[in-house]
Amino acid sequence: MTVIETMGKKSKEVARVLATAGALKDKALHSIADALIENTDYILEENAKDLAAGKEAGLTNALLDRLALSPERIKGMADGARQVAALPDPCGRIISGGKLKNGLEVTKVTVPLGVIGIIYEARPNVTADSAVLCLKSGNAVILRGGKEAINSNKAVATVMRKAIEIAGLPADCVQLIEDTTRQSSIELMGLSDYLDVLIPRGGAGLIRATVENAKVPVIETGVGNCHVYVDEYADVDMAAEIIYNAKTSRPSVCNAIETILVHKNIADKALPLIKAKLDEKNVELRGCEKTIEILGDSVKPATDEDYATEYLDYILAVKVVNCINCALNHIAQFSSGHSECIVTENYTNAEKFLNSVDAAAVYVNASTRFTDGGEFGLGAEIGISTQKLHARGPMGINELTSMKFIVKGNGQVR
Amino acid sequence: MTVIETMGKKSKEVARVLATAGALKDKALHSIADALIENTDYILEENAKDLAAGKEAGLTNALLDRLALSPERIKGMADGARQVAALPDPCGRIISGGKLKNGLEVTKVTVPLGVIGIIYEARPNVTADSAVLCLKSGNAVILRGGKEAINSNKAVATVMRKAIEIAGLPADCVQLIEDTTRQSSIELMGLSDYLDVLIPRGGAGLIRATVENAKVPVIETGVGNCHVYVDEYADVDMAAEIIYNAKTSRPSVCNAIETILVHKNIADKALPLIKAKLDEKNVELRGCEKTIEILGDSVKPATDEDYATEYLDYILAVKVVNCINCALNHIAQFSSGHSECIVTENYTNAEKFLNSVDAAAVYVNASTRFTDGGEFGLGAEIGISTQKLHARGPMGINELTSMKFIVKGNGQVR
Repeated sequence: MTVIETMGKKSKEVARVLATAGALKDKALHSIADALIENTDYILEENAKDLAAGKEAGLTNALLDRLALSPERIKGMADGARQVAALPDPCGRIISGGKLKNGLEVTKVTVPLGVIGIIYEARPNVTADSAVLCLKSGNAVILRGGKEAINSNKAVATVMRKAIEIAGLPADCVQLIEDTTRQSSIELMGLSDYLDVLIPRGGAGLIRATVENAKVPVIETGVGNCHVYVDEYADVDMAAEIIYNAKTSRPSVCNAIETILVHKNIADKALPLIKAKLDEKNVELRGCEKTIEILGDSVKPATDEDYATEYLDYILAVKVVNCINCALNHIAQFSSGHSECIVTENYTNAEKFLNSVDAAAVYVNASTRFTDGGEFGLGAEIGISTQKLHARGPMGINELTSMKFIVKGNGQVR
Repeated sequence: MTVIETMGKKSKEVARVLATAGALKDKALHSIADALIENTDYILEENAKDLAAGKEAGLTNALLDRLALSPERIKGMADGARQVAALPDPCGRIISGGKLKNGLEVTKVTVPLGVIGIIYEARPNVTADSAVLCLKSGNAVILRGGKEAINSNKAVATVMRKAIEIAGLPADCVQLIEDTTRQSSIELMGLSDYLDVLIPRGGAGLIRATVENAKVPVIETGVGNCHVYVDEYADVDMAAEIIYNAKTSRPSVCNAIETILVHKNIADKALPLIKAKLDEKNVELRGCEKTIEILGDSVKPATDEDYATEYLDYILAVKVVNCINCALNHIAQFSSGHSECIVTENYTNAEKFLNSVDAAAVYVNASTRFTDGGEFGLGAEIGISTQKLHARGPMGINELTSMKFIVKGNGQVR
């Protein structure tokens, strides 16, 4: 047995303990929170090693910032653990039930998924956040973080494992793969005897590689090629505010927009207003011919590649469309199924957009930036699913559960 | 573009139509039912070609029986379509919803999955049954049946496609891959640009091959290594009846049992009773040393391989266990997570078994044969999921849906 297979086997064993651990899970979360605070200095020392290595290796400032921990960020991890502990237990909820004609009582109840694998990149807080959500939902977790954060991840995992043991649960509820070669993540993706699901948390490349290579069920997260469609019946000031917010409040995240579609009958009025707002943040526009006709040569021409790109930057593609159906067709062609918005005062068009667009979240007259577990009231999120199987949109602890049928009889045979 | 890619593209297009087709879906199902009856002779002629080819190729009688259609079986397909039409629409159900503090109204509603691929073997009625369930739940479907049934499948698909068009929906809601080479199923498993989910319906080999090769989300169905545990507090007569039913009422199906575990304190009393019942159907027993001690040399010795095998036949493995925890450990090691049963009159042991066993359906004092969409009141089933993601246990039309968040605002930004 390889190291990772052995970890899988251990996870499957402790998953049986966790499935009936009840309130001990919350005790472990509080224990983790205490331990993270107590061990702040140790975690920061280990994090400093990663930062030094990162600088040496020439990581960008953006990457170094993601990698960096601070007393505040560690407190954030601890606070997160306490908040999750305060949520209701997602397991053991009765979804439905009743008596069949033959007297059998059939009840559908939520149970943990079992063993969850998480593959992620350079942010060490993902180590704590993921472990906390998996633990709360009664799942054993195997973590495989990026090599840039390995010392930080080891420190956080060590602290958490001790804390879990103190609370009376097996340390192996949380395991970290210390081998950060490509081989170790490929092996994790193939661990079908032990893993119930694999969740990649990171950029498009990581997610694609996971979907391509995994032999276990995967939940795809995070890619967001999102649109705002400004309908001919839009309030143009509201449209400009929503577009400004959805593009510039945090361009690097998946619920930020990448393209706007503007109805031709309102384009002359709306586009200059929208551009004026976006100019405040120096957003680069790439537009169709009509857009350039209206806004002038400062707008670069947009290609189909632009419409397909998740910029995650201060860049926005713009297209003037002839009708709402043209907008719906464009979205059907280019959307990644994350978050899509129509700005309109027209009831029929609003309903048409809501019903026709195939995405995790479909908006009327609000910024796509709200697609988020915290904003939607899930307590905390492990990611935003852009697939349709199992979970779609922001995933909280309820989405980390499965279910089973409990059947009680008194001798029934078929 | 290959033939199969073109089919995928068409499916994705018609999926947009189906998503908002409402009552037209039921109209199409009735139209299919009518057309199947009207075209009975044509379908039987094509089926006769498959049967002749099958005899030529030396198929077993069991396989030929699965392949054979009759006026009654065709009527069964038509009746199935009408029954499914009578079910409530699984799409557009509101799962949850409410207003956020910022005034946004967030509603979670069910929507179709989109495009479903079904890979199956020699039973031509799966062609109609699968298409009917997919259509009802608003999904476009691509069918890939076994080569033995290709003429029957083509006939059924042609009849259904015409009927769907007559009802006013695009024929491409249902497409059949006519190429039955291995290559075509491999290509379908990799159709990640178009397929939302792939469901293999068939034996363990097909399911394993699909899980190994698929690049799209798969729902695993059907493998059932199921157990009955006879607790020391069991009513032994009830235990014998349940075991007799669960083993012999239909040994070839996934909810039949393959191993019984008997508590040592009751084994002397229970095993002879159980054997006497099973002898009525000449069930071959393979037992542990203690079993042979009690029942004599007519019982063959059982190996770990026996405990791991889904016999699907008149063979049953038997093990005497020292305690309920021993039974739970055996089940955790060998169960495929399908259906597991305890026979007991003891409350604590019943609850312990229900809470600890990790399976789609867990029973007290009833035959595992009830794990079935029809029995559980789902109307009809597309399969029994043995994975934990998305759906577990019998899957009906509700399990062929996803969901989306509908968000209504009046200018909210974050």
